[in-house]
Amino acid sequence: MRFANATLPDGSRRDIDAKDGRITALSPSSSSAISGSDLDLGGALVLPPLVDGHIHLDKTLLGLPWVPNRATGSQVADRIEAERKVRAARSVPESETGANLVRQVLASGTLHMRSHVDIDNRLGLRNLHEILKVRERFRDLVTIEIVAFPQSGILRSPGTADLLEAAIAEGADLLGGLDPVGIDGNLDGHLDVLFGIAGKRGVGLDIHLHDGGEGGIAELLAIAARTKAAGLGGKVAVSHAFALGSVPTARAAEAADALADAGVAIMSHGPGAATIPPLLLLREHGVTVFGGSDNIRDAWSPFGNGDMLDRAMMIGYRANFRHDHELSVAYDMVTSAAARALGLADYGLRVGGPADFVAVEAGSIAEAVAARPQRKLVVKAGRVLARDGVLVA
Amino acid sequence: MRFANATLPDGSRRDIDAKDGRITALSPSSSSAISGSDLDLGGALVLPPLVDGHIHLDKTLLGLPWVPNRATGSQVADRIEAERKVRAARSVPESETGANLVRQVLASGTLHMRSHVDIDNRLGLRNLHEILKVRERFRDLVTIEIVAFPQSGILRSPGTADLLEAAIAEGADLLGGLDPVGIDGNLDGHLDVLFGIAGKRGVGLDIHLHDGGEGGIAELLAIAARTKAAGLGGKVAVSHAFALGSVPTARAAEAADALADAGVAIMSHGPGAATIPPLLLLREHGVTVFGGSDNIRDAWSPFGNGDMLDRAMMIGYRANFRHDHELSVAYDMVTSAAARALGLADYGLRVGGPADFVAVEAGSIAEAVAARPQRKLVVKAGRVLARDGVLVA
Repeated sequence: MRFANATLPDGSRRDIDAKDGRITALSPSSSSAISGSDLDLGGALVLPPLVDGHIHLDKTLLGLPWVPNRATGSQVADRIEAERKVRAARSVPESETGANLVRQVLASGTLHMRSHVDIDNRLGLRNLHEILKVRERFRDLVTIEIVAFPQSGILRSPGTADLLEAAIAEGADLLGGLDPVGIDGNLDGHLDVLFGIAGKRGVGLDIHLHDGGEGGIAELLAIAARTKAAGLGGKVAVSHAFALGSVPTARAAEAADALADAGVAIMSHGPGAATIPPLLLLREHGVTVFGGSDNIRDAWSPFGNGDMLDRAMMIGYRANFRHDHELSVAYDMVTSAAARALGLADYGLRVGGPADFVAVEAGSIAEAVAARPQRKLVVKAGRVLARDGVLVA
Repeated sequence: MRFANATLPDGSRRDIDAKDGRITALSPSSSSAISGSDLDLGGALVLPPLVDGHIHLDKTLLGLPWVPNRATGSQVADRIEAERKVRAARSVPESETGANLVRQVLASGTLHMRSHVDIDNRLGLRNLHEILKVRERFRDLVTIEIVAFPQSGILRSPGTADLLEAAIAEGADLLGGLDPVGIDGNLDGHLDVLFGIAGKRGVGLDIHLHDGGEGGIAELLAIAARTKAAGLGGKVAVSHAFALGSVPTARAAEAADALADAGVAIMSHGPGAATIPPLLLLREHGVTVFGGSDNIRDAWSPFGNGDMLDRAMMIGYRANFRHDHELSVAYDMVTSAAARALGLADYGLRVGGPADFVAVEAGSIAEAVAARPQRKLVVKAGRVLARDGVLVA
């Protein structure tokens, strides 16, 4: 199968040959050579698959009638409580709504994602089991990494530590954490559990950290120190890390050096009201910075759609990116940098690589981020998966 | 013409009868009564036309190949300079790119807008003349209010004061202003010119104010005091007013009282990196708060698309709106509140009102804002103007 007249991110015009799911050639296009069986991309910009570094497949209510947000306060704890009520009232299993979301993100060109899945002592492993079904169902189309996420805390939800370890045994890929101080009120206690299980099970970590200011920085530094001590560099991420955007630049730079040295990546979804970490500074200091959707139409947020070009735009908008090289950073966060953070070994547009890509009408990466055009084509393993934003299969 | 089975914002199911461009009846729907000439909306949510309270039709580069941002700094003055270079290099007149943008916003359901148009001592009234052509061209489809906008300042661009007055004589509807202190370095001097011309010509004002902190608050208070003294209440707006989001709540509340008392409205586009004014607080204190796109793919910003549901989402995201009643505020800002700020006398879904509306697939106003679905139908004066996001005419 030949996908003719693709414009690659470097601006070159190529024909993409695919066989048995791999790219077998990327040759300079010659329009005279188009044959009837070729698919002519007409110069559309071809990107590697989009990567969602932070999604909550078990939380979304996508596909259900609108559910108003009922949180009675604006703190994380208020929203945890509100979510419990939504969960108790829902009649459709998380595997169904999660599948709705996976279908939507596939159509937008996301072929790899990391999903946090709630685990606490009331839920047990129920949500994990539901999302494992989703992963199995879409296994040929999308990579889903699962993070065992203690949404209600670890110490304040007794029994959760054992459940987290059981989750790993049952198929979760990473351990999650949540505001060791803000939720559990015990930095070392929270991290002892996480790094203890991680060391024992040989898995990575992705820790939610909303705690701001100097307190949040102290938590980041503790995570970095423990990551380094445990030799887990490259396998640990902190999601949100609002604190990095709420302290003086010099202090954020110190923290960035520690994170880079330890191999701790930072995920940002381009928060609406919270402070956004200084993305360019973090990158300059060697930190892997990647993007994710975070909540999509769930008890936490009414917003979000799972479209990672839309997300890159939001990240760029919040980070005050205006120049092309800055917009390219937002793009990198939802493609290569996210692939690196997720540890995807087989990623990228190259001969021998997977024949997975997304085509959009845009003259440049910067334009693709700013205009977030509809996906003209999504190709997985050399086969057309979606066309004009609609799944084909 | 009957548009059957509309769901109105209050949740009622109605048939909309239109004749000679007006709504002649809003009767409870009875599906059995649909005739062949009716257009069945199938229960779609019908909204009044969207209103863009702040757009720059002369700045956009929409429809041209991507133009990278070349500003060498991040200050307003740097961007003014960068825009001069973009303007000098462009070969397509502003009337053409402005028309591109008008077509795009029409398709998204915006039928009323307020456009600022650059005026300075190098440009003269050139951009005004170009945008007057656009207004004339689309006069039957969209209301375009024009603000004579001194993008390079008034005092620092000698001759601009006379040009602003000439612009009003030639068809601009309001006078604009720009950071009296931050750009012109002279609060009273800047406001003397604006209120002098406004008094003489009997026009309103819409002043860009990026200046933050206590300095920006002082400018707001001066504008409020002069508005009250001049009896211009209800005809003055301040756009952006980032300062309101950068001072303690009590101080913002004091300013809100002064603005409400004077009849000064506040426009916010939901800024990406700057502080957003406390929208709910302003409304609680009686200030009219409305929304606008601001820059759309121009020398200032690569972002924006002119879709006011997308904009309402951005505003809500930045303002941390999560509950339905908050999302309804974002909706109000791009519909009724904006219509009020623009002084639109003939606005709203009611018998006797204009047969102008937008239909979307959404179960509620909150869902329409959060999900910003494609516009199923845009109707102007009882005629279908756009369908599924595409202009029909």
